[in-house]
Amino acid sequence: MEHPENNQEYKGLAVNRGIEQPASVNPYLKAQRKAKRRTLSVAEFVEGILQGNVTILSQAVTLVESVKPEHQSIAQEVIEKCLPYSGNSVRVGISGVPGAGKSTSIDVFGLHELQKGGKLAVLAIDPSSERSKGSILGDKTRMEQLSVHPDSFIRPSPSAGSLGGVARKTRETIILCEAAGFDKIFVETVGVGQSETAVHSMVDFFLLIQLAGTGDELQGIKRGIMEMADGIVINKADGSNVDKAQLAATQFRNALHLFPAPDSGWTPRVLTYSGFYNLGVKEIWDMIDEYIAFVKENGYFDYRRNEQSKYWMYEAINEHLRDSFYNNEVVKSMLADKERQVLEANLTSFVAARNLLDAYFAELKK
Amino acid sequence: MEHPENNQEYKGLAVNRGIEQPASVNPYLKAQRKAKRRTLSVAEFVEGILQGNVTILSQAVTLVESVKPEHQSIAQEVIEKCLPYSGNSVRVGISGVPGAGKSTSIDVFGLHELQKGGKLAVLAIDPSSERSKGSILGDKTRMEQLSVHPDSFIRPSPSAGSLGGVARKTRETIILCEAAGFDKIFVETVGVGQSETAVHSMVDFFLLIQLAGTGDELQGIKRGIMEMADGIVINKADGSNVDKAQLAATQFRNALHLFPAPDSGWTPRVLTYSGFYNLGVKEIWDMIDEYIAFVKENGYFDYRRNEQSKYWMYEAINEHLRDSFYNNEVVKSMLADKERQVLEANLTSFVAARNLLDAYFAELKK
Repeated sequence: MEHPENNQEYKGLAVNRGIEQPASVNPYLKAQRKAKRRTLSVAEFVEGILQGNVTILSQAVTLVESVKPEHQSIAQEVIEKCLPYSGNSVRVGISGVPGAGKSTSIDVFGLHELQKGGKLAVLAIDPSSERSKGSILGDKTRMEQLSVHPDSFIRPSPSAGSLGGVARKTRETIILCEAAGFDKIFVETVGVGQSETAVHSMVDFFLLIQLAGTGDELQGIKRGIMEMADGIVINKADGSNVDKAQLAATQFRNALHLFPAPDSGWTPRVLTYSGFYNLGVKEIWDMIDEYIAFVKENGYFDYRRNEQSKYWMYEAINEHLRDSFYNNEVVKSMLADKERQVLEANLTSFVAARNLLDAYFAELKK
Repeated sequence: MEHPENNQEYKGLAVNRGIEQPASVNPYLKAQRKAKRRTLSVAEFVEGILQGNVTILSQAVTLVESVKPEHQSIAQEVIEKCLPYSGNSVRVGISGVPGAGKSTSIDVFGLHELQKGGKLAVLAIDPSSERSKGSILGDKTRMEQLSVHPDSFIRPSPSAGSLGGVARKTRETIILCEAAGFDKIFVETVGVGQSETAVHSMVDFFLLIQLAGTGDELQGIKRGIMEMADGIVINKADGSNVDKAQLAATQFRNALHLFPAPDSGWTPRVLTYSGFYNLGVKEIWDMIDEYIAFVKENGYFDYRRNEQSKYWMYEAINEHLRDSFYNNEVVKSMLADKERQVLEANLTSFVAARNLLDAYFAELKK
């Protein structure tokens, strides 16, 4: 009779019980890696960042992006200490619908800017990104020249989370990058959602990349995005496409007339270029330089940065207040029912709101 | 020697001290008015409203607009009881920059609609209005024909307050008007601020009145308003102005191509008209009728109304949460200082927010 313990289907390699299995990987590897990844002290982080050490900067950004409380507490101390050294940069937001050639353009724009000297950080906000480590490489690969440039630092969007969370991490990363001496910051966004507002609220100049095309193609732009643009640039103005791009530029110029004048006093411009053939890129950055000089002269540059700092303080407060409410267990248990009563016209929207609020505040007092 | 009490400059009619002055108005008048204005019971209000009694409707709206808690508590009960009888109307939001001829247009539009039968209520949202009783009359006078029409009910914006508060009162007034049999609701707004979003969130069709003119004149439109429009109508298309109006219409049509298609599936149209000469008004209301038929057919009409009810519930919650925070005494005492620290780069926006939130929630637990 077979041993009862062996009375099992054959499953390939058998495990002999009672015998310790060898580790599947080199047991010393983990220890080695741990040693390498020893968390630096706050002072070491700050020192490394201020010296422009990109490896340490990168590690600090990883802490900023971490959800672990112990990482966050170090990250916040580091950011706090870096804050006085931040701010000395030009921050440009770059948005455009998928397919507009954003990555190629950023590659060319970045190289153009780096030829003038200085250091460039390319960050991103994409709350939808379910980032694996693979796609970091993906991002870098699409920016062929920047990814191997010694004075560039490319960091994709923090992984998926609330827009507020993702935006906060990107904004904190800007502080660290600036403290590390990066004087040109690009913040890329995907052009398909509310993330534009977030990017617009952390940059000095908002550049919208568009494609020439029929009215239908242009409908990819989301509400309000065109009105945020300090400059609109039409990509792929090359070869047989030049006329179409010029026509699109004219259309956009006419459309911009229908919008209110921006607070900056700057009149948004529309230019055409070719990212692939590197045509018209200089003109775009001349425009941005001109804008920066203009708003530094009239005081809007500082005004906008201050408004942005306040904006993020109030955003953080409002987001936290909402989270506290909607994640409250009592509220969660009542919400669907109140919504149903509102939709069935048994309760006005305002009475339903008051019922939920009363329950919430009673719960907080407990 | 003159009496010391008379040793005064001559100021016209003298007041003889020690003699009781007669009341400047009939002392019985107040008592009479009080008797007239005896507050009705909730049941009487509801009955009167459902019978279409405009005097009682008007009194109920006054309670809705009152800040007194005892008035609010009656108002909420009345609204609650009217709610099942509400909803049976077409709600049209009408916006336009000052000078676009909104009042004249609404007068003409309203009369055109009333010729088809039914009853029309004209409400307004203008959070900036420091309304005195005089300007109610002013509003009515500008709508010459509607103000004397037996089937119209004109009510200016609730007096100044937060946009949320003003919008809430207007939304509740819509409920009462509908319960009173008003099957056409116009909600007017001033075209110079966020109130458009509020109006857009309580109507079925959003109509934007524009003027022909140069690009500069058109810059009066605020961010995002054009994108809300289900229809844009260019006023003053009469006499020598017709060509200019047609040109403006073409420009707006082209600009609308640059916007995303609305969720309704409806393609916003641009028409010209003359409010003063009553030209092209029928075409505007044919368009609105067509729109209503279209969205009732594809289900968007009900979908949008449901979304609006939910929107107002969540708006009321979020506004109350913010009010509770920013009116908290501890928060108020800390806020200016935290803002200063953020602006001086001593504190990140997020740490400042957290400090304030910690203090707030600690205070709530007390």
